[in-house]
Amino acid sequence: MREADIIDLLRPLAANETAAGLADDTALWSPPIGRNLVLTHDIIAEGVHYLPDDSPSDIAWKLVAVNLSDLAAKGATPRGVLLGLSLSGEDEPWLQGFADGLGRVLAEFGVELWGGDTVRAPTTSLGCTAIGDVVGRAVARVGGAAGDRLYVTGTIGDAGLGLAARRGEIEPNRFLERRYRLPMPRVSFGEKLSSIGATAAMDVSDGLLIDARRLSRASGCGVEIFLKSLPLSDAARPLVSGTDDLLAAARAGDDYELLFSLPPGREQELKEAAEAARLQVSCVGHLLADPDFRVFDEDGTVIEADVLGYEH
Amino acid sequence: MREADIIDLLRPLAANETAAGLADDTALWSPPIGRNLVLTHDIIAEGVHYLPDDSPSDIAWKLVAVNLSDLAAKGATPRGVLLGLSLSGEDEPWLQGFADGLGRVLAEFGVELWGGDTVRAPTTSLGCTAIGDVVGRAVARVGGAAGDRLYVTGTIGDAGLGLAARRGEIEPNRFLERRYRLPMPRVSFGEKLSSIGATAAMDVSDGLLIDARRLSRASGCGVEIFLKSLPLSDAARPLVSGTDDLLAAARAGDDYELLFSLPPGREQELKEAAEAARLQVSCVGHLLADPDFRVFDEDGTVIEADVLGYEH
Repeated sequence: MREADIIDLLRPLAANETAAGLADDTALWSPPIGRNLVLTHDIIAEGVHYLPDDSPSDIAWKLVAVNLSDLAAKGATPRGVLLGLSLSGEDEPWLQGFADGLGRVLAEFGVELWGGDTVRAPTTSLGCTAIGDVVGRAVARVGGAAGDRLYVTGTIGDAGLGLAARRGEIEPNRFLERRYRLPMPRVSFGEKLSSIGATAAMDVSDGLLIDARRLSRASGCGVEIFLKSLPLSDAARPLVSGTDDLLAAARAGDDYELLFSLPPGREQELKEAAEAARLQVSCVGHLLADPDFRVFDEDGTVIEADVLGYEH
Repeated sequence: MREADIIDLLRPLAANETAAGLADDTALWSPPIGRNLVLTHDIIAEGVHYLPDDSPSDIAWKLVAVNLSDLAAKGATPRGVLLGLSLSGEDEPWLQGFADGLGRVLAEFGVELWGGDTVRAPTTSLGCTAIGDVVGRAVARVGGAAGDRLYVTGTIGDAGLGLAARRGEIEPNRFLERRYRLPMPRVSFGEKLSSIGATAAMDVSDGLLIDARRLSRASGCGVEIFLKSLPLSDAARPLVSGTDDLLAAARAGDDYELLFSLPPGREQELKEAAEAARLQVSCVGHLLADPDFRVFDEDGTVIEADVLGYEH
């Protein structure tokens, strides 16, 4: 398809004032007065974030969802996206499917398509810039303090198991595969992070352990993680037994849950926010004054850091 | 190089409050109060916008410059960029060169690096989101009216000839090749578009003829273009003789000059703005009430539209 045809296909999704039907090369937006902006750009790559035979609708969902997840971790309300699509000859049915999934994810989270660019390339690469806004200061990654508890939303390890199922390495599982293909950015819970008193937050995209270490280091702290507290879904639980499986779940990426630190004494606010968002929230560890990074297995034994091997 | 190493390499360019040294997945920006935002995203592709043996420094310049050019056409002051780099194994010297060029273009136009993403991919694809702001309404593409004159900044056809020279199709020419490799977005002149009374504007990225037709159609007008008024550089003039060469110049892309419509009677304001920006500005045609698209050759003869063949 020619670029003009692709734009025609996406135009119905851009019937908003900012994009003005994609009639211009730029989007024109009046940001809400008194709010600060949060901006992020993530690319998803075939073979890493999605598989060649994933449906184009699911790929579009994931492209936008992983970016909204970054905004959610800052407590921002998402407003619009710009897409950068390097396409390698995808045909009209593929692009129609992509547009369908795009429409679904934008509608689900109340986000507008504002613009972007599409070029022909030898291989496909899909980029998205997402813009949101926040009252006052966004929740940073650097504000955690020793003694803060470390919480995570939802369940951990599902997407990693879903990818293994999709690859035929374990039994097919509809729930787990869906968690890999169609992540749910925790937007409405994220909007409450600031008011419940979260000191630092990020989303779990590369794995709980590496992301917890990033958050603690950015905050100038160490961290302890307890594998026995790892929240597992009903679908994952029968597949996770023993320390190695728990470690694998804690090292798997793509869950797009929120990881955040909270000082003790905020449990009631946290409980109410989680209930309002219909989300499970679990304490998986706490931040330390010393720069250590410690992971405890189910028996409370420290696992040697050099066998974690999750750094990529 | 690992992603962490690439981020380390770019970190010195992100020493601003919004990017906070790339320590987070997101950028946090407080937009100037009372200004509207202009957002754009353009990708540059190897073999289209740059050649495989172009220096990485020039490639970085062009990636940012083509996006700033879109902002300039809306009268916006550029503020920040997010980059989406799909890299296919570029080595450290390449990335160092890329970072050098990035630093140069950001410094030249007073723009900040706010963030982005980098992934490993089979082929290289480079995306950039640029954000700027404007007082009041941005100059749209749709505001032109019959009787408006159509102006273009600088000279036209240089980049097309520069690409031909780079490909060995014509004699090497340092000036023309530089115009292809290192476009100069017309940022400071663009900031005056609104105050001089421009009714519609866009940048010339795909060629003067096709872009003039886009502007006129978006404005609900027709357009007449006079090839004899095409502004040629001293370097291009000896290489352009006769209607075919003029047409080729008017069809060549990548000049990144500004094309805008202006009602009669604004010549003095235009002259002062052009002088302040040290830019040549030329009237190349005017908008029509009827939806025609007419191109006149040097003798004033209408060239048949069906031999233009510039639509891609």
